[in-house]
Amino acid sequence: MNETSSLEIPTFDDVIAAHERIRPHIHRSRIFASRYMNQLTGAELFFKCENFQKAGAFKVRGASNAVFGLSDEKAAKGVATHSSGNHALSLSYAAGRRGIPVTVVMPRTAPQAKKDAVRGYGGTIVECEPSTSSREATFAEVVAESGADFVHPYNDPRVIAGQATCSRELLEQVENLDAVIAPIGGGGMVSGTCLTLSNIAPKVEIFAAEPEQADDAYRSFKAGHIIADDAPQTVADGLKVPLKELTWHFVSNHVTDILTASEQEIIDAMKLTWQRMKLVIEPSCAVPLATILKNKERFAGKRIGVIITGGNVDLDKLPWL
Amino acid sequence: MNETSSLEIPTFDDVIAAHERIRPHIHRSRIFASRYMNQLTGAELFFKCENFQKAGAFKVRGASNAVFGLSDEKAAKGVATHSSGNHALSLSYAAGRRGIPVTVVMPRTAPQAKKDAVRGYGGTIVECEPSTSSREATFAEVVAESGADFVHPYNDPRVIAGQATCSRELLEQVENLDAVIAPIGGGGMVSGTCLTLSNIAPKVEIFAAEPEQADDAYRSFKAGHIIADDAPQTVADGLKVPLKELTWHFVSNHVTDILTASEQEIIDAMKLTWQRMKLVIEPSCAVPLATILKNKERFAGKRIGVIITGGNVDLDKLPWL
Repeated sequence: MNETSSLEIPTFDDVIAAHERIRPHIHRSRIFASRYMNQLTGAELFFKCENFQKAGAFKVRGASNAVFGLSDEKAAKGVATHSSGNHALSLSYAAGRRGIPVTVVMPRTAPQAKKDAVRGYGGTIVECEPSTSSREATFAEVVAESGADFVHPYNDPRVIAGQATCSRELLEQVENLDAVIAPIGGGGMVSGTCLTLSNIAPKVEIFAAEPEQADDAYRSFKAGHIIADDAPQTVADGLKVPLKELTWHFVSNHVTDILTASEQEIIDAMKLTWQRMKLVIEPSCAVPLATILKNKERFAGKRIGVIITGGNVDLDKLPWL
Repeated sequence: MNETSSLEIPTFDDVIAAHERIRPHIHRSRIFASRYMNQLTGAELFFKCENFQKAGAFKVRGASNAVFGLSDEKAAKGVATHSSGNHALSLSYAAGRRGIPVTVVMPRTAPQAKKDAVRGYGGTIVECEPSTSSREATFAEVVAESGADFVHPYNDPRVIAGQATCSRELLEQVENLDAVIAPIGGGGMVSGTCLTLSNIAPKVEIFAAEPEQADDAYRSFKAGHIIADDAPQTVADGLKVPLKELTWHFVSNHVTDILTASEQEIIDAMKLTWQRMKLVIEPSCAVPLATILKNKERFAGKRIGVIITGGNVDLDKLPWL
């Protein structure tokens, strides 16, 4: 067990409580299988389709758990976060469902579509410059003024307990899994997967899949301590952020291995999934398939749960075009 | 009852037999719903997702029924068709499953991806010039030489009985439908829908949706006889073909109305479906949604089955780009 932070490590009881709490607000997402993909990989793949999730991504699980776990008094002050991605949408969705204010600090350069989506769910956007210092200063102001509850995209026990409900459903939906694989960025989904599997299916292996060009989790895992990159560039834009203390705790203790894939391999796996499975998935979710195709011997003959994390793609800018 | 051809009109007993026959070779495709789409249209929509069907389209139902209904003697000589679209893929898939030869006459200008897919299923392609005369001459030669059984893409009772299994499943999957809507080209899917609904759910209305730029079925319906266009141009490339005697029989007797949509409306509905529902669907399947959006008052408050006919799209040439 590695040393961890002052943040409380969520337990499996927290996962059960989270699942009860968020059930009215999320989908129990479906499992898809594909004979073509099985023949191609030599494994038996079960895709847990969180691209069909509310707000288009698994992040709504953790965000809803945080929002609906607040006391009425705390909730009245609202929630806040900084994110230009699915966490921003998901927190806005959850806060909208509860009818409380939500403020999202976003770089002014964030895609208009994401800004529109946050506002569509009733969120307020406060723009900052596209730098860490501007983001932190702006965010501190927002919280100081509003007293809003900060919901971190992944380094938050409530968020990790929420994400953990995904693999809990997966275990109910598919029997006798040998392994589960999910993409890794900050490590929220992978930590949730570790939390569930280590408690109720400890023999199931846990793989994390990462872009070669943003392989800080891979290097952290090999080095035995967190390594954070400054500004990695990858088409899998959900996976650029570094591990933090809570997610490092789960990754370092429970992950079997971290595998990486090149940009071209990720794009090819994404396009193949669209083409053969007719699923709109984000580049990030193609990383697991890309690493399975690259490490066939490791997965051959096994039953693998593959977490498709989201489907929020800019359809005007597809990476293979 | 209108006058019909020498071709036998399939009955609902044929549909039941078809369903038994093809069950091992097809998916019982899933139903998707979307709160967003319901809010947008004011109706309650149930999407029957044949984009997830084997070979990527509903056409595999009719093709499989024809192929697996052949006597061993007939089957040994194989099957043949002319098509550059989903029927070509579907017939190749079905023939491959039965292990019999299949020949597809295709214009040499057909997309390479479609040719590759037919060959991938074990089909033989005979190329012709992109004209009706060349196609017919080439096809006559193929049949004369091989003695193969001709499976027309839609004007064939076995094919219509096969397509009719789709709405039979839909009725089992969704209760109390008020209407079903499907795209119309040659009319195979719409005829199958008419065949099923007129027999077991005669109160459910049947709408056909057609591109304005290939509105021959609409004009036929209004005129009371088949009008065939020479070479209509539309992004919904599965819907360019005209009605024939068998499909005209069903359309003229059982369809409630035919609605049309412009090219831009079709493209917008397609993109919206990808964006919000994360489903890869063909332009053709977006026509029903486009017409619902255009005729909201007609569908408001009703429970509508929407047949998503296929998901075989050229991902390198998306119509909104």
